[in-house]
Amino acid sequence: MTILYHCMSARSFRPLWMLEELGRAYELVMLPFPPRVLSRDYLDINPLGTVPFLVDGTTRMSESAAICQYLCAISAPTSLQVEAGEDDFGAYLNYLHFGEATLTFPQTLVLRYSRFEPEERRQPTVAADYAKWFLARLRTLEPVIEKHAYLCAGRFTAADVSLGYALLLAQHLGLQSRFTPAIADYWQRLQLRPGFIRALKAQEAAALAQGVSIVPAPDTAPGT
Amino acid sequence: MTILYHCMSARSFRPLWMLEELGRAYELVMLPFPPRVLSRDYLDINPLGTVPFLVDGTTRMSESAAICQYLCAISAPTSLQVEAGEDDFGAYLNYLHFGEATLTFPQTLVLRYSRFEPEERRQPTVAADYAKWFLARLRTLEPVIEKHAYLCAGRFTAADVSLGYALLLAQHLGLQSRFTPAIADYWQRLQLRPGFIRALKAQEAAALAQGVSIVPAPDTAPGT
Repeated sequence: MTILYHCMSARSFRPLWMLEELGRAYELVMLPFPPRVLSRDYLDINPLGTVPFLVDGTTRMSESAAICQYLCAISAPTSLQVEAGEDDFGAYLNYLHFGEATLTFPQTLVLRYSRFEPEERRQPTVAADYAKWFLARLRTLEPVIEKHAYLCAGRFTAADVSLGYALLLAQHLGLQSRFTPAIADYWQRLQLRPGFIRALKAQEAAALAQGVSIVPAPDTAPGT
Repeated sequence: MTILYHCMSARSFRPLWMLEELGRAYELVMLPFPPRVLSRDYLDINPLGTVPFLVDGTTRMSESAAICQYLCAISAPTSLQVEAGEDDFGAYLNYLHFGEATLTFPQTLVLRYSRFEPEERRQPTVAADYAKWFLARLRTLEPVIEKHAYLCAGRFTAADVSLGYALLLAQHLGLQSRFTPAIADYWQRLQLRPGFIRALKAQEAAALAQGVSIVPAPDTAPGT
């Protein structure tokens, strides 16, 4: 059985969305955010105390974009991954990493220093530096996304899931109003995916059933 | 022909090390750091202005850990990648991402706010927050690396290259003295790899030949 540990609309939304796109069976365990603070027993399962955490047979994983790639590989053949022989294989791997390392991490700085830290430890300059940093890097996608419905290989893939989560987080942070038109259109397209909608419903249903708040993690967290 | 754009000891050291481990032919183009500021023409090649940038046929890539994975795939079969059928495939993908997204990005905060920014924009609190953040996450590797010479699959792989660069950067930042003994031993092992030593020599020779300073990028950058 595949078990995914998840907080509402946190990075673990990537593997959840991926599981729905792939139509795989899974158990969804909802945790209050941040689990490191509010669910201390979770550290026995994942010593990092972060989400996502995937348990699949003997496999244990904590990196959301890596999990997307893993889930595709064990579901192969699937159009959701780009194979080594395809023209866009390099672009696919690049976007998988870019969505997290380049577009998500900077936003966690915005979150931390404008919302999570207690008032006296907030750093508005750092939050502004990294909002700007995120938007500048996001704009480099413009030439691609103006011409294509999805990032690579002429179809929706795990690369779009990786990038799509960065856009979901940006929306929670109020950065959506600064998206260029092509990025805004792309984000609209992603939100219309049946897999995306099923993932939203799945986390809400699981949160209600498990007694966890349905307010998205980025809007609720007390401390990091 | 494979071309790698690189700055001394920057993230682009990952693909350089990987190319040496794989024994592939490549052209190494050295840039002063940060290229966005000191080599404006480079923006025509890579609009992000970051290194690495890999040009391989029609493929263009900018994410260092993704490039490692790509170079393994086009060199397959190779023991440097873990195949989808192997037990440690999930762990392998996870470490590839973990080395960059979890262990390198936080260190760039330390760099930026303790060294690169002009005096009046420095943020010692943020630099300290993320040095601590990095070291806490690094410590979670202790149980693995106490028992095994390498991260996964019982052999040296691209996952060790991804993680090894985070340790190289930590050394430049003076965080090495805070490594636990098992991490320090692992870092020693990585530095003894002939591929690592060849990569160090290759960047120094290319820098001298191309008139670029051989001082590591993390120690020289004026501004971000």
